[in-house]
Amino acid sequence: MSEEQGYSGNALDCLKKYNIKVGDSIKITADLTYSGILMPRYESGDDKHLVIKLGSGYNVGIAIDEIQEIQVVSNYEVTPDEAHRLKIQKGLIQDKPIGMKSGNVSFDRDKILLLSTGGTIASKIDYRTGAVTPALTADDLYEAVHELSDIANFDMEVLFSEYSENLQPDHWIQIAEKLDSLANSNYKGIIIAHGTDTMHYTSSFLSFALAGFPIPVVIVGSQRSSDRPSSDAAINLIAASKFLVESNTKGVFLVMHHNDNDQTVACHVGTRVRKNHTSKRGAFETMGGDPAFIVTPTLEIQKNIQDDFFKDEKYNPRIRIDTKVSLVKYHPGYDPQLIENLIQTGCKAIIFEGTGLGHVGRTMYDVIKNAKENDLFLGMTSQCIDGRVRMTVYESGRDLLDLGITPLENMTPETSLVKAMWALGNSKDADEMKSLMLKNIASEF
Amino acid sequence: MSEEQGYSGNALDCLKKYNIKVGDSIKITADLTYSGILMPRYESGDDKHLVIKLGSGYNVGIAIDEIQEIQVVSNYEVTPDEAHRLKIQKGLIQDKPIGMKSGNVSFDRDKILLLSTGGTIASKIDYRTGAVTPALTADDLYEAVHELSDIANFDMEVLFSEYSENLQPDHWIQIAEKLDSLANSNYKGIIIAHGTDTMHYTSSFLSFALAGFPIPVVIVGSQRSSDRPSSDAAINLIAASKFLVESNTKGVFLVMHHNDNDQTVACHVGTRVRKNHTSKRGAFETMGGDPAFIVTPTLEIQKNIQDDFFKDEKYNPRIRIDTKVSLVKYHPGYDPQLIENLIQTGCKAIIFEGTGLGHVGRTMYDVIKNAKENDLFLGMTSQCIDGRVRMTVYESGRDLLDLGITPLENMTPETSLVKAMWALGNSKDADEMKSLMLKNIASEF
Repeated sequence: MSEEQGYSGNALDCLKKYNIKVGDSIKITADLTYSGILMPRYESGDDKHLVIKLGSGYNVGIAIDEIQEIQVVSNYEVTPDEAHRLKIQKGLIQDKPIGMKSGNVSFDRDKILLLSTGGTIASKIDYRTGAVTPALTADDLYEAVHELSDIANFDMEVLFSEYSENLQPDHWIQIAEKLDSLANSNYKGIIIAHGTDTMHYTSSFLSFALAGFPIPVVIVGSQRSSDRPSSDAAINLIAASKFLVESNTKGVFLVMHHNDNDQTVACHVGTRVRKNHTSKRGAFETMGGDPAFIVTPTLEIQKNIQDDFFKDEKYNPRIRIDTKVSLVKYHPGYDPQLIENLIQTGCKAIIFEGTGLGHVGRTMYDVIKNAKENDLFLGMTSQCIDGRVRMTVYESGRDLLDLGITPLENMTPETSLVKAMWALGNSKDADEMKSLMLKNIASEF
Repeated sequence: MSEEQGYSGNALDCLKKYNIKVGDSIKITADLTYSGILMPRYESGDDKHLVIKLGSGYNVGIAIDEIQEIQVVSNYEVTPDEAHRLKIQKGLIQDKPIGMKSGNVSFDRDKILLLSTGGTIASKIDYRTGAVTPALTADDLYEAVHELSDIANFDMEVLFSEYSENLQPDHWIQIAEKLDSLANSNYKGIIIAHGTDTMHYTSSFLSFALAGFPIPVVIVGSQRSSDRPSSDAAINLIAASKFLVESNTKGVFLVMHHNDNDQTVACHVGTRVRKNHTSKRGAFETMGGDPAFIVTPTLEIQKNIQDDFFKDEKYNPRIRIDTKVSLVKYHPGYDPQLIENLIQTGCKAIIFEGTGLGHVGRTMYDVIKNAKENDLFLGMTSQCIDGRVRMTVYESGRDLLDLGITPLENMTPETSLVKAMWALGNSKDADEMKSLMLKNIASEF
């Protein structure tokens, strides 16, 4: 990237006019008054906007032709620590613990590993087309969020670079094996940068495969790319790091914006969370309860004291999977023949997304009986998404229990599917699989 | 039912002791003080509780052995109007308009038709097993909710008696044809009593099949059976009737408890609503917005003025359906072969529940191409449930657009599925189907 850090044309002229540089703390008078730090742009950015990061960690783009004045509040200076870090990143010196700023010298700062797998958090927007493409490396990400260096020392590694809709169970295994290799490391915790589309599937798998993992693992994404005005990448990463350093917990969490509020970040239990909105930043929700932890606007960690999570003490890695599991969402007009087809193509387990408390129509009874005779595991969840299946209330439910369907309580359909793939891969027979499905491994119930 | 209306043993003794009868307005002193009307019980009810209906329409059961005193506030008397109505119900006299109470005599009272299809609203609970079975007829239901006679005159008809998980598209056709036969009737509106599991699928179908229907149709259910303490049957029916009489609208609505508040009922547009909780009374939600109307605790009708619904003026019945449509929820590990199987078994349209903004993994591209070559209609929705698909933002979305997938905006997956079955049944070719899918027929976008 050029010395002007992505600014060109009119935007670069504007920077020169007011004698400001990326990293400076500035105050812009336009339609409103904006105070914040001038952020870098990326190569394909337009030349019509400046981007500043507000105190909230929220980025805004300001149109050049609306700017009336810019005042410099303070110039950006590279602190000795940051200079040191940049040298480590560029391979100029070896990574070793460095002291904290301003007299608070310490040689045992917390260390966090940032593993990048791709996704919006590691993407940039093309301002000409409005499209987002994977581009940033873990290094870029770290460099873009200066605040991280106040929290811990970071190591970074790119595992792969995929949007999460392209991730498959093989990728889950790859992530799990990487984490397993770090079970005895001196990291305080591990951040996985991940696309948001399927991050709750990945968090479920890691929760089961690495039950009892000795250090906390957080999966972090962003709904808007990190160089874009209104990106949530910075605030999510900062909160995740703070959470790893201060929460004194273990388990797999998904860390994202809490709701429409710009300032609060939620740490969801990896098996209880779901993406419930296509685009808003607070898209992820803990189903049937509150998040396990909240990171407040002042970066305090608040624990949800109503629930207890991850009681399993001993680390018990079981990193195998068998994907011969199908998710079947029942609806009026569902053709029972489709279940026959699943049996014939070697499917070994079906997770039903039933209606209401866990029902399917009686048109399905014959094929369910047949599936059971073929030794498939049949689990019931609800397409209502929230609430709990209860199959003893209505005739339909009792009929299905008689046919051998296993109710999966309040497990989400997505977590049930992933757990079934995992249980199938880690069981020698149908009884063991059923017993694993009903055991609370990672706070999924 | 016996003269004591379901009370026996200890409960009957209690009624005798205080000299009270079903229908009396009473005040019970127990752990708290309860004021309300003594409700009938059903034959299999226990003898340990009295059930009273509070002013809110909410029923509570009070344990006999906690009752300290019961005062009779006023005795139940059958008014001339009610006596008349009961005679009509029993076929003793012919149905004709009757005057309103207390001097407000009118021979043109509004008429509502109540069609029963089954479900919890037409069920009772077996207090021994806790299970709910279909038992009540439309007559029973009407008799149980005395307040309805203050709102309108009712005709009642049982179409069938099925829990809604057992309803199939054939039932939708049956309901639609019944309604179509009433398009020129003098009913102010029509209530369909329906199980809650699939009522949003039915409301979608009726919305499309009967677009522009000249009088309002409301589908009403209850999450708890009508003879059970905490049943929402009465309040939902009362609000639905009031809505039909006063709202001056048309269209198909789903009328259920608004949220956890006991007092408010929501009228959801039939194509924008989803069951989002397995058990709570406020389980139904309008996706991406507020309900079209609210019925307040004082039975006032409040219109949502932000949105306009059902602009289509002319009644255009198209009561056909073709169920060769599949709903495919994509997830990591989804086997593309399953799509090949769908093509081979004659499936003509697939509605994808993609991830995030409307994506599937690139492992699916080949089969999607093949499906397109076989002239299947391919529509994209999001498993996030809320929000809007936007396939121009990410590479994956643009790839899928290139492959011929049609983004279905903010239509819910369930409504998209039902609309696809309806559009397939009402189109002569793929182009006409696509055009129907993208046209806003019944406020589904």
